[in-house]
Amino acid sequence: MTVTTENPHINGVDTATLFATLDAVKGQPEIAGFQFRAANTWISGTHSRSTFAGFFGATQEMEHKSVTEVDSDHPAVLVGQDEGPTPVEYVLHAIAACLTAGVANVAAARGVRLDKVTSTVEGDIDLLGIFGMSDGTVRNGYEQIKVTFHIEGDADPETLRGIVEQSRRRSAVYDVLTSPTPVVIDVVTG
Amino acid sequence: MTVTTENPHINGVDTATLFATLDAVKGQPEIAGFQFRAANTWISGTHSRSTFAGFFGATQEMEHKSVTEVDSDHPAVLVGQDEGPTPVEYVLHAIAACLTAGVANVAAARGVRLDKVTSTVEGDIDLLGIFGMSDGTVRNGYEQIKVTFHIEGDADPETLRGIVEQSRRRSAVYDVLTSPTPVVIDVVTG
Repeated sequence: MTVTTENPHINGVDTATLFATLDAVKGQPEIAGFQFRAANTWISGTHSRSTFAGFFGATQEMEHKSVTEVDSDHPAVLVGQDEGPTPVEYVLHAIAACLTAGVANVAAARGVRLDKVTSTVEGDIDLLGIFGMSDGTVRNGYEQIKVTFHIEGDADPETLRGIVEQSRRRSAVYDVLTSPTPVVIDVVTG
Repeated sequence: MTVTTENPHINGVDTATLFATLDAVKGQPEIAGFQFRAANTWISGTHSRSTFAGFFGATQEMEHKSVTEVDSDHPAVLVGQDEGPTPVEYVLHAIAACLTAGVANVAAARGVRLDKVTSTVEGDIDLLGIFGMSDGTVRNGYEQIKVTFHIEGDADPETLRGIVEQSRRRSAVYDVLTSPTPVVIDVVTG
């Protein structure tokens, strides 16, 4: 592909390594088995903190280059101390970040240079669900999540929209939200 | 409830305000309509940053007491620069933080003093899905998410397990993951 040879780091994406990685996975599909992890500690009230350190992937234990900590809490109006964004807001970050990473990769693979990609995510939720005050018609989670992308790049609008659509089709977080994901909860006491 | 009068801040939860809030919602259900938001900006490659500033709730626009920024990226093994946790890792934080906040609230409402609550979350994902290399049998998202709680408090194991179970039943993030959530994506180019 001439384009990727001429622009090995278009959009900050190392396309040569990206394609080499995909080739490696084709030759050894078991390296695609990953396990991501978070460790959470309750602090007080609705405030807790998670750390992200290691994960399993490409047949081995791996470490992030640095450990990240994030805090979550409920705002005062929901009887928290507002020591961080709510858990449901992190879900909005996750879908934006996942789609955006895909946009950059897909655009690079298609030889499209991006100038700017921003997005806003809005999640509508009726708290009658989690308050246990609905007659069963109000769900606990978001009724809808809306992502609005603003994209500028050296391609026509149709091409840019096609890049977002391809990112959606291959988005892990989009799939986790729109299709049921099994969640198992174990409790150890003592 | 004698217990909550004696322990107005058990587990750091202001139970009097919590119950007053629930009463207020019962009297005026429209205050339960919330919209949470994130604003994301692409930085380079698979690296992007989200900010959480305001939200709508209790019939008005509200601001967090401080703006939080979080970064996301892919690790080097997935051709990123590892400038932050992956988007899918934030999903693991979200479920842990949501369930933990609920555990603290439910325990406080039930008069159970918690000493320690930690959890680990593991999400198994086969990247053949997002790489587009499966025959349609591998999904893009997590095959399973497993949350393991370690809880210590002044109650028997059955009571502590019941608190986690009630938190699960009222968890927004648990619902978002386990039941389909509509995600709408708009694209503005220019």
